[in-house]
Amino acid sequence: MVASSETIRLEVPNGSKAVLLKNLYLSIDPYLRMRMNREENYFPSFQPEQVIEGDGVSIVLDSGHPNFKAGDYVRGFVGWEEYSLLTNTFHTDMLSKIKYTDVPLSYYTGLLGMPGMTAYAGFHEICSPKKGEYVYVSAASGAVGQLVGQYAKLMGCYVVGSAGSNEKVHLLKTKFGLDAAFNYKEEPDLTAALKRYFPEGIDIYFENVGGEMLDAVLPNMRMNGRVAVCGMISQYNLQKPQGVHNLPCLITKCIRMQGFLVFQHRHLHEEFIETTRRYFKEGKIAYVEDVVEGLHNAPAALIGLFSGRNVGKQVVMVAHE
Amino acid sequence: MVASSETIRLEVPNGSKAVLLKNLYLSIDPYLRMRMNREENYFPSFQPEQVIEGDGVSIVLDSGHPNFKAGDYVRGFVGWEEYSLLTNTFHTDMLSKIKYTDVPLSYYTGLLGMPGMTAYAGFHEICSPKKGEYVYVSAASGAVGQLVGQYAKLMGCYVVGSAGSNEKVHLLKTKFGLDAAFNYKEEPDLTAALKRYFPEGIDIYFENVGGEMLDAVLPNMRMNGRVAVCGMISQYNLQKPQGVHNLPCLITKCIRMQGFLVFQHRHLHEEFIETTRRYFKEGKIAYVEDVVEGLHNAPAALIGLFSGRNVGKQVVMVAHE
Repeated sequence: MVASSETIRLEVPNGSKAVLLKNLYLSIDPYLRMRMNREENYFPSFQPEQVIEGDGVSIVLDSGHPNFKAGDYVRGFVGWEEYSLLTNTFHTDMLSKIKYTDVPLSYYTGLLGMPGMTAYAGFHEICSPKKGEYVYVSAASGAVGQLVGQYAKLMGCYVVGSAGSNEKVHLLKTKFGLDAAFNYKEEPDLTAALKRYFPEGIDIYFENVGGEMLDAVLPNMRMNGRVAVCGMISQYNLQKPQGVHNLPCLITKCIRMQGFLVFQHRHLHEEFIETTRRYFKEGKIAYVEDVVEGLHNAPAALIGLFSGRNVGKQVVMVAHE
Repeated sequence: MVASSETIRLEVPNGSKAVLLKNLYLSIDPYLRMRMNREENYFPSFQPEQVIEGDGVSIVLDSGHPNFKAGDYVRGFVGWEEYSLLTNTFHTDMLSKIKYTDVPLSYYTGLLGMPGMTAYAGFHEICSPKKGEYVYVSAASGAVGQLVGQYAKLMGCYVVGSAGSNEKVHLLKTKFGLDAAFNYKEEPDLTAALKRYFPEGIDIYFENVGGEMLDAVLPNMRMNGRVAVCGMISQYNLQKPQGVHNLPCLITKCIRMQGFLVFQHRHLHEEFIETTRRYFKEGKIAYVEDVVEGLHNAPAALIGLFSGRNVGKQVVMVAHE
């Protein structure tokens, strides 16, 4: 890693529509790993020596843009740096003012941010859930998983989550109120474990993991089951993703397996914020984040995601509010 | 294989609702292989020494059932035998009278039978096709594939099919009118081949094959692509299905991959028959079948499917009409 520094003037160029931000929180998300591959996906790959960018929460220091003024709290796509000067319309279009400041600002990287919206859209739009259905969530204490499990409970589903430590499993059963939870690292046979937790089978699998986990889930799915493919964190560091063998189950069980990206569901954003904030305020949704302090800790925080070192949503605090 | 014979009276038991059939054509379908596995799927497994059953076209010899009378041509679920006595309601419920006899009766095992219906429902309901989209069909000269390709052309899609011999590829390009076709056995790199045939990517993949073919398709899919998983014939004879590696593409391309079974789409049956018969009569749809004569050839015909020996829909003629 090459650390670099530069000197910037803390004001926007005269006459421009740029926005100058002081970054407060950075969202550390698994998908950032994909931007480190040479093959481009939906986003361009990061280039060596380019500042990494991702979701963040910031305060506006100066603005030439009509939608923003100094002192506004905003969330958007920012650099992993102390100050970001957003000069192009892609970045200023992605920026949005934070409406409610009666929750911790860092929550806009999770509960009320991109991961929360991913959970909301993924569960409600992709999973086609019905009351009473059997729902399984992997990486269930992660940024997205913890919210999916709770949305599913609020809909009246039976929800089981898995995670990679007993501490996380405890959180799932207590704080997040799931019906059951297990530590997948302690299960020598994942297929058998799922059979134990779902003797009637799984209607909905919210996929955050991929690989062997998916292979164990498929034979446990019920007829007309749905798999919302949100992420496959177990695969991102592999040269070649693992092979998944049980895909013929898709036919015999009429399973729909659907990948999705949160930015295709913007029409739900307002509803997501209002609903989720209300649930949180009413104590119906709990939220756990794992905040580390200091920009210099961001790379280790990202790497830590892939061994499950974080407990809850991983955030880096760049500066005190 | 144990051949067995028994003597039956060619009339239904007095007072029963049974139907006695003389079988004319048997439909030889890949899914029958799955019923030879110990694990049950949507249908019970075949038991050793049990008569194999599958779709067939028959003439009613005698009937105690109010819906059928001697002389009716019917299609339904029959035994691989010369005469079938259907005594339980499962079998008589599955039986239906053939309305139009102005097409060859054998077509009710294909064009106007279960495979045709599978193609019709699979393409129109599962693929969500739009005019101008890029469609790829594997096993494209098979019973289902040949119809999917033609339905897609009729909708105004750009359609490429693959098959396992140059004779079949020729059929695809001429008789079935696809935009392009290739022999997958002559392609050392399937991913590259698909890239060549679909420089803009694939919107819809109609999956009949599975395994390596699916792995080659996924990186070639476009955003919001759909994979209708109808069959995975390359996998049915394996002890363990091959691993498919490129599933992370589901996320980055927002792909929907959906398995289906034809019997969940019965509401479309009337529309399917009317539409398909009209297309055929008007010369807008062509149909190729591969008929072998004699019940004793049925096992070899089924085995032949898995090496692609058949050209078009495989049928066994049990008796002359």
